[in-house]
Amino acid sequence: MSARIIDGKALAEQINAETAATVAQLKARHKLTPGLAVVLVGDNPASVAYVSSKDKMCTRLGLHSERINLTSTAGQRQLLQLISDLNSKKEVDGILVQSPLPKQISEEAIFAAIDPSKDVDGLSPINVGKLALGDPTGFAPCTPSGVHQLLLRSGVAIEGAHVVVIGRSHLVGRPVSLILSQKTPQANATVTLCHSRSKNLAEICRSADILIAAIGVPRFVRADMVCVGAVVIDVGINRVEDKTAEKGYRLVGDVDFDAVKEKASLISPVPGGVGPMTIAMLMHNTVRAAKLRHEIA
Amino acid sequence: MSARIIDGKALAEQINAETAATVAQLKARHKLTPGLAVVLVGDNPASVAYVSSKDKMCTRLGLHSERINLTSTAGQRQLLQLISDLNSKKEVDGILVQSPLPKQISEEAIFAAIDPSKDVDGLSPINVGKLALGDPTGFAPCTPSGVHQLLLRSGVAIEGAHVVVIGRSHLVGRPVSLILSQKTPQANATVTLCHSRSKNLAEICRSADILIAAIGVPRFVRADMVCVGAVVIDVGINRVEDKTAEKGYRLVGDVDFDAVKEKASLISPVPGGVGPMTIAMLMHNTVRAAKLRHEIA
Repeated sequence: MSARIIDGKALAEQINAETAATVAQLKARHKLTPGLAVVLVGDNPASVAYVSSKDKMCTRLGLHSERINLTSTAGQRQLLQLISDLNSKKEVDGILVQSPLPKQISEEAIFAAIDPSKDVDGLSPINVGKLALGDPTGFAPCTPSGVHQLLLRSGVAIEGAHVVVIGRSHLVGRPVSLILSQKTPQANATVTLCHSRSKNLAEICRSADILIAAIGVPRFVRADMVCVGAVVIDVGINRVEDKTAEKGYRLVGDVDFDAVKEKASLISPVPGGVGPMTIAMLMHNTVRAAKLRHEIA
Repeated sequence: MSARIIDGKALAEQINAETAATVAQLKARHKLTPGLAVVLVGDNPASVAYVSSKDKMCTRLGLHSERINLTSTAGQRQLLQLISDLNSKKEVDGILVQSPLPKQISEEAIFAAIDPSKDVDGLSPINVGKLALGDPTGFAPCTPSGVHQLLLRSGVAIEGAHVVVIGRSHLVGRPVSLILSQKTPQANATVTLCHSRSKNLAEICRSADILIAAIGVPRFVRADMVCVGAVVIDVGINRVEDKTAEKGYRLVGDVDFDAVKEKASLISPVPGGVGPMTIAMLMHNTVRAAKLRHEIA
């Protein structure tokens, strides 16, 4: 029996439609247009592509969008000044600084400088702390929120389930483990956080009801690491060489999709799984930030 | 074979001796006396006892100590004003507000109001966030730090081990799971966070190399939940009725000690295990806060 394949694009479109409806309402009733500022430093091709798609999505859903591009030689002071300006700018409800940043700039310092109420990417220490404390006034990072929504909107029973997360990055593994172990009926999972130093990794993965791969290694999760009937969410986006492809490469996830889909009950593909959810959650968070800032319920 | 029993009092005394030596040095070389302010609201007997023992320990180790007792009817505004005064008070390097607080006061609001650089109890969102992000400039809460030190100073191999934590409180379970899964040679464990909603709890506990009980239920961990040779750390402090005891009650942990010690390789008792470590880590954190504030390496 082959797994049901999650259509991340369709689920993201559900969220985007909800967001667009809220934006239309805010414009009509409150003369308010939520705004997102996206900051890009340098010209890394993947980052340029991400920033463009965020920009386009803002336009599509009716949000105000600002795009600021600094050269790759920009200094930390310059970026901090820009953040400070955006923190006080009226039209901007959310600020996203595209990572990775060039080496001369400390990501920690930059994320910590974003006004927590505009930190729609949820990477500042105070928002991470609120997430760990189950305080709902903060913002959770977009990719793990997207994973959570994928599970919820696919009807997966999270409460009491054993979730195994592979990878403890700040962007995905760590926050997704915090979200799914929160004390709420939408979470309440037992969560195991694994990583490169974990012993008996295959055995631990086989004990998962829900397996989340976010380790950044192409096809790391093999079929023998998955128990029959498990739900498998693949957060990886890896470029592998492919001479038959037009660009010379192909995107694959952290899961050996073709083999694992024969054992899993539900699986997310790459591309078309978690990816579209990340942008959807960014738009959702920006609109929520606008409502909170203007005290609209 | 019976487990080796951890002497938490002796290990805490190691840390206290280190702290006292640092305090003596700070006084001699820098004319600096680290200071701790402990705030108690009301007169809960257990809280009064905790506050007294913190006070005494400050005196013993040479720290300046202030104790502020508000009546149980004190309002949130009054406590916030007090915190604000302590935040700017020169002699105070660390602030501890004894929990639990009376119902009219939001613990979240109080913890968030403490200057993060004086939050030696590590409960403010920003310090919790730094802990989750592996940022060593913050303060980790005292009890989970004490558990970490118990393991390290008992020579337990944490790296790569499977740690199962029972209980996801802000004070213990959640932060200990963050500490032990950090990407450092002193941690690097695979951590599973369990709680009241976890399914197959006994089975998960049996897969633990290190089992940490912090659920607040007397003798919750039975022998059949522990695998032979496991390390068992008991964070529970529960009062159970005992007519033969002078006070009419006795303190027991979350672990069925007598039965579990026959299977474990190493076990912490209650009392005399984690308890003394909590105060030792509070003193350690306060001295560290003083050094950081005065930029002493």
